[in-house]
Amino acid sequence: MSKPRAKAPKTALSHVDPRGRVRMVDVGPKAETAREALAAGEIQMSAEALRLIRARAVKKGDPLQTARLAGIMAAKRTADLIPLCHPLALTNVDVDLEELPGGYRITARVSTIGRTGVEMEALTAVQVGLLTIYDMCKAMDRGMTMDNVRVVEKRGGKSGTYTAP
Amino acid sequence: MSKPRAKAPKTALSHVDPRGRVRMVDVGPKAETAREALAAGEIQMSAEALRLIRARAVKKGDPLQTARLAGIMAAKRTADLIPLCHPLALTNVDVDLEELPGGYRITARVSTIGRTGVEMEALTAVQVGLLTIYDMCKAMDRGMTMDNVRVVEKRGGKSGTYTAP
Amino acid sequence: MSKPRAKAPKTALSHVDPRGRVRMVDVGPKAETAREALAAGEIQMSAEALRLIRARAVKKGDPLQTARLAGIMAAKRTADLIPLCHPLALTNVDVDLEELPGGYRITARVSTIGRTGVEMEALTAVQVGLLTIYDMCKAMDRGMTMDNVRVVEKRGGKSGTYTAP
Amino acid sequence: MSKPRAKAPKTALSHVDPRGRVRMVDVGPKAETAREALAAGEIQMSAEALRLIRARAVKKGDPLQTARLAGIMAAKRTADLIPLCHPLALTNVDVDLEELPGGYRITARVSTIGRTGVEMEALTAVQVGLLTIYDMCKAMDRGMTMDNVRVVEKRGGKSGTYTAP
Amino acid sequence: MSKPRAKAPKTALSHVDPRGRVRMVDVGPKAETAREALAAGEIQMSAEALRLIRARAVKKGDPLQTARLAGIMAAKRTADLIPLCHPLALTNVDVDLEELPGGYRITARVSTIGRTGVEMEALTAVQVGLLTIYDMCKAMDRGMTMDNVRVVEKRGGKSGTYTAP
Amino acid sequence: MSKPRAKAPKTALSHVDPRGRVRMVDVGPKAETAREALAAGEIQMSAEALRLIRARAVKKGDPLQTARLAGIMAAKRTADLIPLCHPLALTNVDVDLEELPGGYRITARVSTIGRTGVEMEALTAVQVGLLTIYDMCKAMDRGMTMDNVRVVEKRGGKSGTYTAP
Repeated sequence: MSKPRAKAPKTALSHVDPRGRVRMVDVGPKAETAREALAAGEIQMSAEALRLIRARAVKKGDPLQTARLAGIMAAKRTADLIPLCHPLALTNVDVDLEELPGGYRITARVSTIGRTGVEMEALTAVQVGLLTIYDMCKAMDRGMTMDNVRVVEKRGGKSGTYTAP
Repeated sequence: MSKPRAKAPKTALSHVDPRGRVRMVDVGPKAETAREALAAGEIQMSAEALRLIRARAVKKGDPLQTARLAGIMAAKRTADLIPLCHPLALTNVDVDLEELPGGYRITARVSTIGRTGVEMEALTAVQVGLLTIYDMCKAMDRGMTMDNVRVVEKRGGKSGTYTAP
Repeated sequence: MSKPRAKAPKTALSHVDPRGRVRMVDVGPKAETAREALAAGEIQMSAEALRLIRARAVKKGDPLQTARLAGIMAAKRTADLIPLCHPLALTNVDVDLEELPGGYRITARVSTIGRTGVEMEALTAVQVGLLTIYDMCKAMDRGMTMDNVRVVEKRGGKSGTYTAP
Repeated sequence: MSKPRAKAPKTALSHVDPRGRVRMVDVGPKAETAREALAAGEIQMSAEALRLIRARAVKKGDPLQTARLAGIMAAKRTADLIPLCHPLALTNVDVDLEELPGGYRITARVSTIGRTGVEMEALTAVQVGLLTIYDMCKAMDRGMTMDNVRVVEKRGGKSGTYTAP
Repeated sequence: MSKPRAKAPKTALSHVDPRGRVRMVDVGPKAETAREALAAGEIQMSAEALRLIRARAVKKGDPLQTARLAGIMAAKRTADLIPLCHPLALTNVDVDLEELPGGYRITARVSTIGRTGVEMEALTAVQVGLLTIYDMCKAMDRGMTMDNVRVVEKRGGKSGTYTAP
Repeated sequence: MSKPRAKAPKTALSHVDPRGRVRMVDVGPKAETAREALAAGEIQMSAEALRLIRARAVKKGDPLQTARLAGIMAAKRTADLIPLCHPLALTNVDVDLEELPGGYRITARVSTIGRTGVEMEALTAVQVGLLTIYDMCKAMDRGMTMDNVRVVEKRGGKSGTYTAP
């Protein structure tokens, strides 16, 4: 079931090539301003996997530190991974982890002074951070799931501030 | 809340460096065998965003085709992104999309003939595919969420077949 | 036979290291201005290969869409591939395909607001787009050739506008 | 005009998804054998540009040595650039340059012991080598064109030896 | 034994997360200014290896030209390699080699107009240049050592000019 | 003009192109065997920088853990950085740090089952690990030097075991 939306989204773009021709958005005309995005996501795991992480008893090493680094590095690779993303000179990437009752939440805050937003960089940091935790803990629990990956907040640029409902 | 697990996981590894020293798993002693993994994940979006994708009216182009390609390419970059993953000569990557009532499900099947499994490659394909859909549709709906990313099946290697419960 | 040139090119650079020492051009003193380049190139193929592309009967999928995406992504990787190219924050990459009697023409338009031109990015998009078509159609026709890859137009920067003769 | 082909190509693949769904070819069932490919391509330039290269008077350094290296490095990046290419452990890459009356010919020979051919790697080496010459000489001649990029020979694998007509 | 330092370094940062949480430095508030760094390093080798390089008799080709190019290309990849480095649009990279009695010295000068310094880019160019010489000469001398890699000079930004003692 | 050659170089490499043409070594004829390399290197720093690392008071986070990860990831990128290195499917990378009186020693052990040795991968892991420590501590001590980077041991392949003197 699709989620309800309070406001009307942008309407259909009748000039779009019906063959689905892919294109970047031309950000040349946009102003170079400070922009920031915050994304988050979660990984659910077994009680035993959680216990081993907490006890720092994971064979591959500390998944939380590693996830943080992998997320930071992935944010810098976003334009390599997402076909229509613009390369951006990020000014900051901050990845944080918080323990939940059944797993971990990763949040990533990314900043730039540029012509387009950095929500894709923040989401990429979260996803690769989650994948890294999966990788390091998969010997203990193959059934981990990654959920609720989303943009939490976005600031700067013409469209102003977005805060997730 | 942590999810229940039917079987006992591997027990704590008491020889692990308490400072959380990260390490790869040495796969040199493992046999080179055919291995396959299937992962899946979903993106939830507004009815309007769904309608525009179906109508091929997304400004950036067809998100489904683009997500498929981005997922395939990302699978090949897994060892660059996930710190402790081994580089593997993938023999196949297949990314598929299925429309759900409120969004899309991406599944990725990855194969190799190698010394370690390819579930990270399949998960990476799914995550980057989902991120690509988000990127292409975000002008219409910033509130999309990515969920239920998981390994569905894994075959080959010493640990045999895993099927998600 | 070398092609004739109407205007005298820059004269020999007597200060160049005779051992052929490679060096980047220092673009620090250049102004950050809007720059654009348009490049084009062609691939010639058999009538049968053309027919199968038109009929969307290529086993690997639609080569035209895939070439477009591969070209866009490659433009962003130019500084990784061409040793003396400067990394640039591209503001737009647009890759287009046109059917010719015996194949396809790819054109790529790349824009930046930066200190040096983007003709290498446009040429790289064309070349990788052509290679992608070759890859996807090679099972049908190994004899395809890629030709006439060139800069068509270049705007911005101190040297002003160039238009291919 | 499409080029004539002596032999009938593979016939249309009626099972192909009409939406042009892209897919890799599964090379898992293929045998790991020695494979080799030879590709070639040319760049045409003004007499003055040629003269400056020969005189080692190019400001950026020796374009021929640089093109050779860039081609070798690009061959190793092929699977990163061409969406449906398989990553391969190349055993050799050899890039050569030959002076022509109006420019240069680059040939690239690539070898592997693997499950699929290396013609894409050889073509990528040629294209990036040509682009590198363009980059290093473009201050002298913007009108250079790259032509006649093709597979010259291909050995190994089930399909046997191919030699360009 | 630690080396003596004339001036007092920055004092301990008591607000630092005791678990050693990694973080980038937020360079958003910094001014975009011209910055430059010069780094150097040396490789020591056997007299015989030196003689073969001088005689241009190294089987893999000229190590000095290749090292220069590899250093330039690596400088552009710094943010991919060093986890907390910011991506920067380099305006120039210049790599030079000088023969020493027992080997070679590589120096790399890197410039940008950006929000943070480029000493890591200069050091990366030096290290990869040294590694390239090692690679090309290792068949002749496995015992080469790389030494004295350091920042020689750094200009621009709030902290002003640094010159190695 | 090629420079004259006075004497025959070592082991009669008379087939070497006198213009210093770069080339990979063809490893196709080599056997696929287990190979391992151990490399080491050191970073010298001020007593104060050492004290802050030990106290886990470095603003950017724990440099030792980060260096370990950066080294592991860099080993996997070696063929991207060193022009004539072959891509290899590494089976293990292990990076270790040891405190010295005036700094740290990094050792990297890399394994593969392949057709050529992995000393370049081990050296690359060491160099990038050292660079990462420099990066994280440079605000405290710009004068750190990296020294004594070398291959300590190499096993496997036709040339057998090498141990540094």
